[in-house]
This record gives sequence, structure tokens and C-alpha cells, in this order.
Amino acid sequence: MSRNLAVRPMSAAIFAAYGDVIEVVGDPTKLINQGKCGRYHDLAQLDFDDGRAGISLFDAQARTLPHLVDMVERHPQGSQAFIPLNGVPFLVVVADDAEGMPVNVQAFITSPGQSINLHRGVWHGVLCPIGAPGQFAVVDRIGDGANLEEYWFGAPYVVETIG
Amino acid sequence: MSRNLAVRPMSAAIFAAYGDVIEVVGDPTKLINQGKCGRYHDLAQLDFDDGRAGISLFDAQARTLPHLVDMVERHPQGSQAFIPLNGVPFLVVVADDAEGMPVNVQAFITSPGQSINLHRGVWHGVLCPIGAPGQFAVVDRIGDGANLEEYWFGAPYVVETIG
Repeated sequence: MSRNLAVRPMSAAIFAAYGDVIEVVGDPTKLINQGKCGRYHDLAQLDFDDGRAGISLFDAQARTLPHLVDMVERHPQGSQAFIPLNGVPFLVVVADDAEGMPVNVQAFITSPGQSINLHRGVWHGVLCPIGAPGQFAVVDRIGDGANLEEYWFGAPYVVETIG
Repeated sequence: MSRNLAVRPMSAAIFAAYGDVIEVVGDPTKLINQGKCGRYHDLAQLDFDDGRAGISLFDAQARTLPHLVDMVERHPQGSQAFIPLNGVPFLVVVADDAEGMPVNVQAFITSPGQSINLHRGVWHGVLCPIGAPGQFAVVDRIGDGANLEEYWFGAPYVVETIG
């Protein structure tokens, strides 16, 4: 038996407890390049214990609906940012933590132009471009150690529709 | 009077002296998400003195040809990665350094799917999406200090065509 999971549009306000939404909003922090480029400065809380920040690429297969959420994972040693390179919307599943167990599972769908940064240790689903494959630049922790915990749900969630 | 600047396709091999080309090439470093996602691991040399890595967004106006290169700049305190969010090709102008003066100016044009990371202190031109505006995620140094030197050419360069 599975539990239905509703999907909301991603926004900075509702995602704040889990991470940052990296997007162009309002006026730039400053203009550079003789006024021809706006810089929106320092939009993500990068947070690593030991180790260091690095840039990797993730090349993810397309996911389709209905999408089964049978597992979430977390990275206790560092934050993880996902920057989509081809504008494909992606499903972001997160959960609160209750003494090592993910609870209050929630799902969001990104809009074009939105990247996200998951805060350190936040429970989240697999990378999930919807309807098309997705390449993502990922800024996360480079260092030793497994830095991965998984939790498999006895009663999985399912995303039937978006929106 | 200006000097003509030829443009070559961006590739990791010819750009190695100036920075990294961040792109999917060959097999992934490892498979994650139950085999549905390939991770290409740690593709850029992030290099900051004091300060720390951060993610910003740059929203750049379109540039057109002919493009005048009358100035280059460098950031002595940190590397700077440019990750295009909408696949627009961008012109990358770099130069060697000879005792504080940029010499051997070169120009490259990126292909879709290519991001770049300029190594710390490398002379480079302004952000230059060609033919369309470009949004870029930028991973660079967050910290105090100007971290910027500019050099204005007495005899500018011009990019007439992209071959």
C-alpha cells in the first residue's frame, strides 16, 4: 500500500526549512561588467564539516508519473546544491527528521530558472527530472567518508500527478 | 586601431592552462540513485585563499559581433566557475600574465553543455553570452577585499566572427 504525496510549486518561502532556492528575484545585488551583468550574490548556505566544496555533474535519467518514493537519503557531512543545465523541471522530495526517522514528507516541483541547495543533513529523495533526462551541476562536499544515510519506507509514497 | 582575435571551440585540452571545462565526457565516476544517475565527480579546481565558496547568479545581457575586447580582469583571491543555465554559448577570453600584464590573448566559444572554471588569478574578459541573454550560476569566492584587478588595452582586440 502506498500513500499519495501532493506536489506544490517550489518557492523560497515554503522551502526555507529544508534549503535554499537559487533564482533571480528582484534587483541584483550589484551591477558588474560596465552595467551589462547583474550579480545576485551568495544565494546558498554551503555547509561542510571537513572536506571542501566541489563541482560535479549529475546525468540523470527521466522519471515519469506515477513516481514511487520508497526511499529518502541524507548527507550528514554537507549541503548539496542542484543546478539544472537544461531547464527540465525536477521533483524535490524532502522530509523532517524525528530522531533519525524521516517524517512529514513533502514534494515540490521546480520552475525553469530555479536551482536548489539542500541544507546539510536534510532528508531528500533521489534526483528526479520529470519527463526528460536532466544534467545538473552539483555543488557538494568532496571528502572522505560515506556521507550517506538511506531510509526505506515500509509504506512508500507515490506522486500521481503534478499540478 | 584594434587587433583581430580568432575564436576556437572550447575544449578541456586547450583550456587546461587557464581553467577547467566542466562537461559530461565518457563514463561517469560512479552510478547513484539505483543506477539511474551518473556522477561525474569533482570536475573543477576550486581555489580560494581566505573566504569561502559560494553560489551566486549572474544575469548577463546578450553580446553581439563584432565584440570589442578592451579590458580583461582577474581575481587574485579565488577561482570562478560559470555554469550556463539556458545553454547559450558564451565567449571566453583569457590571457597569460607577464609581470602583471596580460599577454597572449585567446578566445574560445563554448558548446551547449560546457561550463568553465577559471583558475585563480587568470586574466579573463567579461561574461559574454553571444546572441541571447544568459543566466549563469557562478561558484566563486565569498569574502572581504576587492579581489579584482582590471587591465585596459591601449590597442583593443576585436572578435569579428565565430567560425
